[in-house]
Amino acid sequence: MSTCTVTFHPADKKVIVPKGTDILQAAVAAGVYIHSSCGGEGVCGRCKVIVKEGKVISEPSGRLTEQERQKGYVLACRTTVHSDTAVQVPPSSGLTKEQILTEEAKGTRLAGLFSKAEEIEKGEEIEEKAVFSHSPLSTKSFLKLPPPTVEDNISDLERLYREIRRQREMPILQTGLANVKKMGRLCRESNWEVTVTLGKRNGTTEVVLIEPGDTSDRNFGIAIDIGTTTIVAQLIDLDTHEVLGTKATHNRQASYGEDVISRMIFAKKADGLERLHHAVIDTINELISALTTEQGVNLNEITGVTCAGNMTMVHLLLRVDPTPIRREPYVPTANFMPVIRAAEAGIKVNPRGLLATVPGVSGYVGGDITAGVLASGVGQAQQICMLIDMGTNGEIVMGNRDWLVCCSSSAGPAFEGSGVRCGVRAMQGAIQKVEIDPRDYQVSCSTVGKAKPIGICGSGYIDVVAELFKAKIISRSGEIRRDVSTDRIREGSEGLEFVLVWADQNDTGEDIFITQADITNLIRSKGAIYTAAKVLATKMGLEPEDAEKLYIAGGFGNYLNIEKAIWIGLLPDLPRERFEFIGNSSLTGSRLALLSYDAMIEARDIARRMTYIELSTESAFMNEYTGALFLPHTDIARFPTVVEKLALK
Amino acid sequence: MSTCTVTFHPADKKVIVPKGTDILQAAVAAGVYIHSSCGGEGVCGRCKVIVKEGKVISEPSGRLTEQERQKGYVLACRTTVHSDTAVQVPPSSGLTKEQILTEEAKGTRLAGLFSKAEEIEKGEEIEEKAVFSHSPLSTKSFLKLPPPTVEDNISDLERLYREIRRQREMPILQTGLANVKKMGRLCRESNWEVTVTLGKRNGTTEVVLIEPGDTSDRNFGIAIDIGTTTIVAQLIDLDTHEVLGTKATHNRQASYGEDVISRMIFAKKADGLERLHHAVIDTINELISALTTEQGVNLNEITGVTCAGNMTMVHLLLRVDPTPIRREPYVPTANFMPVIRAAEAGIKVNPRGLLATVPGVSGYVGGDITAGVLASGVGQAQQICMLIDMGTNGEIVMGNRDWLVCCSSSAGPAFEGSGVRCGVRAMQGAIQKVEIDPRDYQVSCSTVGKAKPIGICGSGYIDVVAELFKAKIISRSGEIRRDVSTDRIREGSEGLEFVLVWADQNDTGEDIFITQADITNLIRSKGAIYTAAKVLATKMGLEPEDAEKLYIAGGFGNYLNIEKAIWIGLLPDLPRERFEFIGNSSLTGSRLALLSYDAMIEARDIARRMTYIELSTESAFMNEYTGALFLPHTDIARFPTVVEKLALK
Repeated sequence: MSTCTVTFHPADKKVIVPKGTDILQAAVAAGVYIHSSCGGEGVCGRCKVIVKEGKVISEPSGRLTEQERQKGYVLACRTTVHSDTAVQVPPSSGLTKEQILTEEAKGTRLAGLFSKAEEIEKGEEIEEKAVFSHSPLSTKSFLKLPPPTVEDNISDLERLYREIRRQREMPILQTGLANVKKMGRLCRESNWEVTVTLGKRNGTTEVVLIEPGDTSDRNFGIAIDIGTTTIVAQLIDLDTHEVLGTKATHNRQASYGEDVISRMIFAKKADGLERLHHAVIDTINELISALTTEQGVNLNEITGVTCAGNMTMVHLLLRVDPTPIRREPYVPTANFMPVIRAAEAGIKVNPRGLLATVPGVSGYVGGDITAGVLASGVGQAQQICMLIDMGTNGEIVMGNRDWLVCCSSSAGPAFEGSGVRCGVRAMQGAIQKVEIDPRDYQVSCSTVGKAKPIGICGSGYIDVVAELFKAKIISRSGEIRRDVSTDRIREGSEGLEFVLVWADQNDTGEDIFITQADITNLIRSKGAIYTAAKVLATKMGLEPEDAEKLYIAGGFGNYLNIEKAIWIGLLPDLPRERFEFIGNSSLTGSRLALLSYDAMIEARDIARRMTYIELSTESAFMNEYTGALFLPHTDIARFPTVVEKLALK
Repeated sequence: MSTCTVTFHPADKKVIVPKGTDILQAAVAAGVYIHSSCGGEGVCGRCKVIVKEGKVISEPSGRLTEQERQKGYVLACRTTVHSDTAVQVPPSSGLTKEQILTEEAKGTRLAGLFSKAEEIEKGEEIEEKAVFSHSPLSTKSFLKLPPPTVEDNISDLERLYREIRRQREMPILQTGLANVKKMGRLCRESNWEVTVTLGKRNGTTEVVLIEPGDTSDRNFGIAIDIGTTTIVAQLIDLDTHEVLGTKATHNRQASYGEDVISRMIFAKKADGLERLHHAVIDTINELISALTTEQGVNLNEITGVTCAGNMTMVHLLLRVDPTPIRREPYVPTANFMPVIRAAEAGIKVNPRGLLATVPGVSGYVGGDITAGVLASGVGQAQQICMLIDMGTNGEIVMGNRDWLVCCSSSAGPAFEGSGVRCGVRAMQGAIQKVEIDPRDYQVSCSTVGKAKPIGICGSGYIDVVAELFKAKIISRSGEIRRDVSTDRIREGSEGLEFVLVWADQNDTGEDIFITQADITNLIRSKGAIYTAAKVLATKMGLEPEDAEKLYIAGGFGNYLNIEKAIWIGLLPDLPRERFEFIGNSSLTGSRLALLSYDAMIEARDIARRMTYIELSTESAFMNEYTGALFLPHTDIARFPTVVEKLALK
C-alpha cells in the first residue's frame, strides 16, 4: 500500500496516510480541525479547503460556488489524495487553537472545592468556604506497617487492610490480583513502608496501587469536560486540590459531524463507533500529555480521572453505542456508568488509575448538566434557581434543594455560529459585539482578539438581531423592512440581507452579512430556549420569572450580552442582578467530583432526583413555541423592561 | 531447535519436547505423573524410570542400586533425551490413575447444601436439613424488562438494576464495561428478555454476564479441592445444587516436589513460580474439560469456581509467590484472596466467570482446613469437637461454636507412603491392611483393588506397626526384637528389617519389608500428630480426650483403622463411636462455599475466629513430643483400652 504525506497549513502539520484517503480523515489523523457538520457526507459544505500542491481526486459538489471552485476550493471529505499534498485550511473552515485555549481557560472560574452554594444563599457575599470535604476519587496514604512476627502473623494483605482501617472506616475494601501478586516482595523490600492509593469505586474502596516507600506527595488527577466541540482538561494536585493547569482543544470527533446527532449517525457506519471513540481518546491523551509535560508530572502519578459530558460524549468515550439516544424514547445505555480503569477506555495515565464519569439524567440531559447543577449549587439552594446551558442543545434546569426539573431544547446550531450564512465559532476575528446606530444605520463591530472580522459568532448574532430590532430594521416577527433607507439592505439569493462589514473592510474577500433566513433561524433558536424555560416553569406551576437566580453556563454564556438576549426574548425579563455567568460549570463539576467523594455522591443524588421533561411529547410546547417566534414575544407583557427601553407598544 | 518425541508407557502418552529436555519435565508436559520428592534435584531418587528406546544422557546417581542400573533404570530428573525416546514408568514411580479417581470419588460423602452440623447436635440421627441457604457464588436470573417508553425512560443499565432489585435487595450492584458495551444492542435484539448472572464479590453483587433470552436453566459451577498431591473437581448444577460429576487426578506440580516445602523451594528458581502455576492450572483445566465433556456442559455455561487448598496451593493457583510462608514468621501474602475472574488465573470457564477461594488461617492452616471446619459443622457445634486432617502436614482443629484453635504439625511424609523404604501411595496394589499372627508371625495383607502387592501405603504402615507391637515383635520404643524367632526378621543395610511379603509372592521382584528406620519414622510422625492434639487441648485447659466428636478428614483418613491408630498412640483413646470419617471435607467445604454465600460468609468467619498456634515456638511441644515417641505413649494411663487389649503393663 503506497502512502502520501499530507501537509496542512497554516498549522504546518504533516501526516502520512494511505493513498486514496480523503483529506478530512487525514486532517483528523493529523490533529487538524476542519469544520464538518454532516460527518463527511458531502452535504454540509463546511469542510472547504484549498489544495495548494499534489494530485487529488475531488467529487463535484453543489456546495461550492463557481467563484470558490476557481480559487481552488474543494470539500475535504469528498477529495482523496493520490500524491504528497499540501492543503490550506481557510479561517472559516478551521479554528485558531491558541485563542480557544485562552478563552476556555477563562471559563473555569470556580476553583478547588468551592461551589457557588455559598454565594446563592448569602447574596453577593462570596465566602470561600469549602462545601465538600477533601476526599478525592483516589487518595494516597503512606503506611508504616508493623513487620509480621510469630505473635502478629496475619497475612500481608490483611496487615495492609488493618492499617488502612486504623486510619479510617472502610466497610468494603477490595483489591485486584495484580497487587496481591507483587505485594509480598514489595512490602519486604521496602521494609514494610508502603504507599497505597485508595480509590472510590461504586460504594466500595479499592486498593488501586501499592508502591514502595512514601510517594504520597505525588498524587494527581485529571478533570475533564468533554464537549461536543471542545474538550477541556485540568491537571489537579489531589493532595492540595490545586489546579496546576488547564488546557482545551477541539474534540477531534468534530470532523465526523458537528453535533451529537451527526455523531450518532456516523457511529452507525462500519468502524464509526471505533473511530469516534479513538478521536475523543486521542484528544484527551493529547491534553493530558501537554499538561503533564508542562508541569513535570509523570503519567503514572495520575491515579484518578473524572469526565463530565453529554450522554453521547460519555458513551463514545467508553466506546458504548450511543445510537439508541437518537430514537424515541431516547434512552441511553447507561446514565450511571460504572467506575472503571481509565486504561480500559484508552486514557493514558497510571494503568490502574480510575475513571469516573459524572452521571446524567437522560439521553439529552447529561453529566455536564448534573455537573453544572453541582457546581452552581442549585441542588442545595433554598431559593428557586434556573440554570441554562446554551449550545446546540439548550439544557435548562429549574429547582432548588427540594425539587429539580430539567429539559433539553434543540436550539439548533445558530448560537454556535453554525447553520448561519457567515457564522463562525467564537475564535480570533469572530464578531461578538455589534452596535447599529438607529439614525444612520452605521454598524460598529468588535471582534474576538480585536482581529479583522472573519464572520459572526453566536453572541454576535444575538447582538445583531437585538440591534436590528432596536433600530427597527426588522419587525417584531423578524422580517427585514425593505423600506428602511440604507444600502446595507440588499436582495440576496435567498431574500433580503443586511451587510455588517463590507468586503473591503475585512480579509475574507467577501461581505459579512446576515440573511433573512439567518434571522428566522435565530428567532427559532431563541424561541426554543425561552419556550423550554417557560414549559418547565409551568410544569411546576411557576413562571420563568419566578427564578430568583439564573445561572448561565457554557463557553458561549460568558460572552453573552444579557440585556440584548432579553431584548430578543431569549432570556426571561428578570432583574439583571439575578443573572450570573458560571462559565464552564461542566468542568467545575467534574473537578468537584474528582476532589470530593461527597460531591460525587451529591452528583449522583442530583442525577437521580432531577425529573426529565421530554419536550417533544409535551403538547404545551408547540403552543408556547409559536408565541415565542416574535421579538421579544407575542405576549409583550412578559417583557416589561424591553417594552420600555425599546419603546414598544 | 530440534525436538524429540517422548512416549511414556504404560500410559502410552506422547509429548514433543526440545532435545535435551529431562524426562521429568517431559512427563509433566505429557501429563504423566512421576514421583519426585525433591523437585528434580536428583536427591530423593524416587523418579526412577526405564528407558526402553532412544538416545539419552543420564548423570550417575548414588540413588540407584547396581541391580537397578543393570535393569536400565535412570532418574527421570537427571536424564535428558537426545532422540525420540520410549520410557517405561514402573508402578512404584507412577500412579494408577483410574484407581485414584474411584478412591477420591468415594471420599466426597457430603452432598449438596448439607453439612454435618445436624448430625453433631442430634447424634446419629442424620436429618438432611439444609444448613445453608441456596445462594450460589453466581446465580442466573431471567428478567423480562419493561421496554423503555417516554414516560419510563431510565437508561438500560438502570432498568436492569431496577428489575434485579425488584427481586431481591442488593445495596451495591456493579458491572464491568464489557457488559455496558454490549447491553444496548443485546436488550433490544432480545426484545428486553435477558438472563443476568449475578456474582457475589467481596460484599457487593456484580452483574457478571448478560445474555439474550432465558438461559437461567444452564448455570454450572466447579468446586475444587487443590491438594498438594491430588486435585479433585466437581461439576455442579448451580440451579439444582446437584453434583453432576467428580473427577480427581494428580497435581502435576508433584513432579516439581512432593510437599509444599519442596514446591516453595522450586518456586524460587527462575520460572519456578510460573511453571508451578501452569502445572496446577493445566491440571484443573484437564479436570474441567473432562467433566464438561462427559456432562455435555459448555465451558461458557460455567460461571463460578471455588477452590479450597492449603495456602501454598492457593498462592500457586493465583501465581502469587508463596515463599514467605517458608520463613519465620511463616506469613502468606493473603489468607483472604480477592474474588477474581477465573480467567485471570488461567482457568478455562466463561471468561467473566468468578473464582473464589476459601480463606485460610495462616501459612500452614489453609482454606482446606477452613473448608473442613465448615463442612464438618465444628464451627457451629455446641459440644467440643476435634478435626484432624492427616497428610504430610497434620492439621488439627479443636473447638466449637464459641472458640476454635488450630495448629499444623509436620508429620513428615510417612503417612503418605513416602520417605519409607517400601512406601507407595494408596493406589492399586498398595498394602493397606495387615494382620500378624502373634503365634507364628505369619502375615496376611490386603491391598487396594485386591491386586498383587507393590508396596505399603500410609494406612498399611499404621497397621504394620500396630500389629508388630501387638505381636511383641517391636518394643514400646519401637525397636525390633532381635530375639523373636522368625526368618522375617533379618539384618538389612540400615539395621533390622521385618519382611511382610517375599519377592516370590509379588510382581516387584523384591521383598516388601519395613525397616527399623521406617518404624522410627512412623513413630515420629504419630508422635507429632498426637502431641499437636495434646498441646492444642492444653492451651485451652483441656485434654484431647475432652473431644466429644473427632472428625478424621483427608483421603487417607478413609482407610485408617481407628483401633490400630489408637494402639500406636496416633489418635487419643476415645470411645470409638466418637470418631467419624468425613472424607474429603476440603472439597465439601469448597462446594458449600460455591452453592451458598451464607456458607462462604461462615467460612470467612471461621477463618477469622480460628486462633492459630505456632507449634515450633511452643516450648511445651518438645516436652510432650518426647513422651509421645513410645507406643502408645510413655504415659500409658492415657491409653487405658490399649493397656487392656494389648495386655500392657
